[in-house]
Amino acid sequence: MPQKRCVLLLSGGLDSATLLALATSEGYLVHALSFRYGQRHATELKAAEKIARHYQVVQHVTAEIDLRVFGGSALTSDIPVPRRRDLDTAEIPVTYVPARNTIFLSYALALAETRGATDIFIGVNALDYSGYPDCRPEFIEAFEKVANLATRAGVEGKVGEPAIRIRTPLIGLTKAEIIRLGKSLGVDYAMTTSCYDPSPAGEACGECDACALRLRGFAEAGLSDPAPYVASENVASSSPT
Amino acid sequence: MPQKRCVLLLSGGLDSATLLALATSEGYLVHALSFRYGQRHATELKAAEKIARHYQVVQHVTAEIDLRVFGGSALTSDIPVPRRRDLDTAEIPVTYVPARNTIFLSYALALAETRGATDIFIGVNALDYSGYPDCRPEFIEAFEKVANLATRAGVEGKVGEPAIRIRTPLIGLTKAEIIRLGKSLGVDYAMTTSCYDPSPAGEACGECDACALRLRGFAEAGLSDPAPYVASENVASSSPT
Repeated sequence: MPQKRCVLLLSGGLDSATLLALATSEGYLVHALSFRYGQRHATELKAAEKIARHYQVVQHVTAEIDLRVFGGSALTSDIPVPRRRDLDTAEIPVTYVPARNTIFLSYALALAETRGATDIFIGVNALDYSGYPDCRPEFIEAFEKVANLATRAGVEGKVGEPAIRIRTPLIGLTKAEIIRLGKSLGVDYAMTTSCYDPSPAGEACGECDACALRLRGFAEAGLSDPAPYVASENVASSSPT
Repeated sequence: MPQKRCVLLLSGGLDSATLLALATSEGYLVHALSFRYGQRHATELKAAEKIARHYQVVQHVTAEIDLRVFGGSALTSDIPVPRRRDLDTAEIPVTYVPARNTIFLSYALALAETRGATDIFIGVNALDYSGYPDCRPEFIEAFEKVANLATRAGVEGKVGEPAIRIRTPLIGLTKAEIIRLGKSLGVDYAMTTSCYDPSPAGEACGECDACALRLRGFAEAGLSDPAPYVASENVASSSPT
């Protein structure tokens, strides 16, 4: 039986590094897919490359997509990234990128189809990103349906059995649970970066939503974050609010 | 009541020009969206610009996407474009671009969301392109579901009523019917181009699938195609096979 193949969306963050460790431990040949999307944090892409090399993926593709054409997000335009925001609000944050996961999954689908991959791994999380519509399980289910209707694999596959599966093993985990899972798989989180607004040297700000979630996760897991932060005080006082 | 807005996928071909004439006649403010996707036919993009200007769209965005990363199609790689192929085969043609309509609709969704558009017009056709999985009505329905789960508009919209609709008015029409519809709306088909493999001067080859379908459509509609072809003999003998 040939080794099973997957496409895995690799951002360079904590979640996708954990995802890659998991897919590797399940024996997949991994085609990693990253995006350069006019985002401010090219630091993430460097981290993605390092992580992809570490896990010896079969292929690492970086697709260039220009979401700035559409504007509308603090991650792709000139709106300032909010700091020390209340993490538990139900509001959709300004860092939400319009239709981002739909676009990312569409590219993953194209890659899966040309590479004969049966699974697409995406590190979405419904708990930490409750404000993002495209991180919900019902969105993922609907996209899986599209994936199987859109492709040759779906058309030529067996009836009632999806030829392409969208895998979201982190969707129901808290950040602390993801970190504990990663630790059990030997993930070195010093390789990862999560910050929306890092310093030119690539140090995390410690104050944006992504940093706050990450630091809270490490605190809840009873661990310290090995990634570099701009001011060491922020890391020391790692439980936010 | 504010004027309704739509995003409309504009390729520069016969179908999307007809689609734009239709959306304009229905009173929409149109945000036209074209793609530069490593395809050989930049001629199409010039046609798209001309058509967009003619119909005075509110905005015409051209997004650059590099499908070549994925390979696998005669339209984006070095596989030769087939000529004089049997149009009525059920096979998926080599000109099929992996997950193309899924990617195109994802971008359209991002644009619709940032511009407050309620409708996305796409000129897919289930009759002429029966070999393309992502031209089928069931694919479109599944994508509409994704669109409404993926976006703020969907989350904040009324229950049971899609906030974003994917409109495919050409899906059940033959090429001849599309041409007759366009003629009734005053479309000048000399502005459009359909060829997969045009000459450097932008003349259609008359022999690829797209040309063959187009010429058959004009012949069935009892009209002659005003677009330029490389050798006038091809146009004269316009009914293929």
